[in-house]
Amino acid sequence: MRAVVMRDSKLVVDDVPEPVPGAGEVLVKTRTCGICGSDLHALEHTKAFVENSPGVGSGMDVRRDVVMGHEFCAEILDYGPGCTKLHPIGTRVCAMPVLVRQGVPVAVGYSNDVPGGYAERMVLMEPLLLPVPNGLDDLRAALTEPMAVGVHAVEAAQLTEDDVPLVIGCGPIGLAVITALKARGVGPVVAADYSPLRRKLAETQGADIVIDPAETSPYTTWQELAAVSLAGEKLPENPMTGTPMLRPGVFFECVGVPGVIDQMMVGAERGCRFVIVGVCMEQDHIRPLLGISKELALKFVLGYTAEEFARTLTLIAEGAMPVESLITGKVGIEGVADAFRDLKNPEAHAKIVVEPWRSR
Amino acid sequence: MRAVVMRDSKLVVDDVPEPVPGAGEVLVKTRTCGICGSDLHALEHTKAFVENSPGVGSGMDVRRDVVMGHEFCAEILDYGPGCTKLHPIGTRVCAMPVLVRQGVPVAVGYSNDVPGGYAERMVLMEPLLLPVPNGLDDLRAALTEPMAVGVHAVEAAQLTEDDVPLVIGCGPIGLAVITALKARGVGPVVAADYSPLRRKLAETQGADIVIDPAETSPYTTWQELAAVSLAGEKLPENPMTGTPMLRPGVFFECVGVPGVIDQMMVGAERGCRFVIVGVCMEQDHIRPLLGISKELALKFVLGYTAEEFARTLTLIAEGAMPVESLITGKVGIEGVADAFRDLKNPEAHAKIVVEPWRSR
Repeated sequence: MRAVVMRDSKLVVDDVPEPVPGAGEVLVKTRTCGICGSDLHALEHTKAFVENSPGVGSGMDVRRDVVMGHEFCAEILDYGPGCTKLHPIGTRVCAMPVLVRQGVPVAVGYSNDVPGGYAERMVLMEPLLLPVPNGLDDLRAALTEPMAVGVHAVEAAQLTEDDVPLVIGCGPIGLAVITALKARGVGPVVAADYSPLRRKLAETQGADIVIDPAETSPYTTWQELAAVSLAGEKLPENPMTGTPMLRPGVFFECVGVPGVIDQMMVGAERGCRFVIVGVCMEQDHIRPLLGISKELALKFVLGYTAEEFARTLTLIAEGAMPVESLITGKVGIEGVADAFRDLKNPEAHAKIVVEPWRSR
Repeated sequence: MRAVVMRDSKLVVDDVPEPVPGAGEVLVKTRTCGICGSDLHALEHTKAFVENSPGVGSGMDVRRDVVMGHEFCAEILDYGPGCTKLHPIGTRVCAMPVLVRQGVPVAVGYSNDVPGGYAERMVLMEPLLLPVPNGLDDLRAALTEPMAVGVHAVEAAQLTEDDVPLVIGCGPIGLAVITALKARGVGPVVAADYSPLRRKLAETQGADIVIDPAETSPYTTWQELAAVSLAGEKLPENPMTGTPMLRPGVFFECVGVPGVIDQMMVGAERGCRFVIVGVCMEQDHIRPLLGISKELALKFVLGYTAEEFARTLTLIAEGAMPVESLITGKVGIEGVADAFRDLKNPEAHAKIVVEPWRSR
């Protein structure tokens, strides 16, 4: 079958062996597959990616071919042995991108042996299949995986009604967090990004106040909101300090670049909580004294649970998480290498999806 | 009155003006005052201390004299105007080291205008006074302040019965955390320090397993304990990874030196929570990807609440928090400068207390 292959740190289109479903596995046709920022990382910083991604990179020998792609909507073509065949052939499905073989989890799209969605066909685990509900189209269904990352981050924040959320960075992860916050009815949500396109998308996804950090400090804006009660009244001043009392801040780090956490620690006030969702591949610096003097809490998060993944698909299908604006491009297999290049420009694109069954 | 004065980054004994209690304030005799690691920091790194300690250092102009000392037991000598005079003259008291003057909090022991406990007399706020209960002696009562830091850190950890705590560093802060954990009935508690004296004190304070990191990895020991259930049974293996399931780890960072948080992130397993109590004055480095791949949570803490401070005094007075072994030296005013030097050697001392009313 035709596939986009990562070979010698390049993407090439080639024929690869047809995948064969093992026991409990299903052969599917890839209908749509989103390109993830992690795939860009994996291509550019392959060695660091493999070394530092326990559970994801561990199945990859970078001297051998890898077919990436883990944000997919697919269609059931055939069942392997031992399946319950619960869903009819032709059912459109989403699934968490993982297979368990001989008790060992294998990441679909980050493995030498299991091709991901940048190929015409894949194998998936039958028990993980989620039929696409409510007539949801392929493109939006394929956004389940990246949006589940936002749902998980918001879950980890353990928000209360009183919290004032701030999203730093409006790339695909920040946009997923904004969408998940709004699906939960949380607000006002403040979001910040240097890119005009990303700010526009943040607004489309429901962010209430969108900031260009080159012009305004997101932390000042957050403080102004946090100084006002839910009922819209200015909070009283702290008699000890003469400064207004503030509602708790929950800051989402969705940039993943060294220095951002430190900058957030400077901008935060006492008792703020951070959820670190952006994946910084390099060493970073912090000043612990800033954290101590403000009693900050940092929660690092990764991925999602099976429940969160399934819930995200339902939320998208029911229209509670709008995603259509996030898709800024569509390519066939031949267009993937160019798409990887285009995605480096935040002004050009948010999410490009691959439709491996069509030519460019 | 006689006092130890910080002047030009040195400690000198000198006469300073007698403090005068203002409205709602009380004149007290300092009976005992512990020397805190923060005082050593303040003397050696005065500029950084003032700049980086909002709320504590902000009241200090380092070009002027400062009388430090904030871990005290005192005796009421006289009341200022407007006091309720609830406690008889002569009552022995502890208090949080803070005064509020004209609505502005002033740190007792870190201010040019309010002398701390390295002087014969101090002024304190009447509403904060806590009479020393149960015939508790001055020396142990003076340990209320540093032990409250441990109580606060353990509170911030939000421990469940299933958690397995690990204390990294057994200086005064680590020992306070160990003591607070044991007062809560938590265990087994693993503690680690390179210093033989500190390891001995960790045992005295109730740590169940005490590790020399030069010989054994504290993280390996923690893992072995975490792989056993509360009922003493080996936990099952994770079918996905083949490694044993682990009870949650709660790691207390009580060193405050760059690199320790990173090392703890390497040693931790998925879902561990860190409480950062050690005060690192310098820039530190972390690898966010380690935190992300293990979904770690870092909670920075500082000080204590009024409730925790009062509870600590009660716990010490009732014998639930033994502290007598922590006091390894006593000096008069003339001995303070030498005591600061001696405290730099972890083999020589844990806590030295000052009795300003006696000569060396």
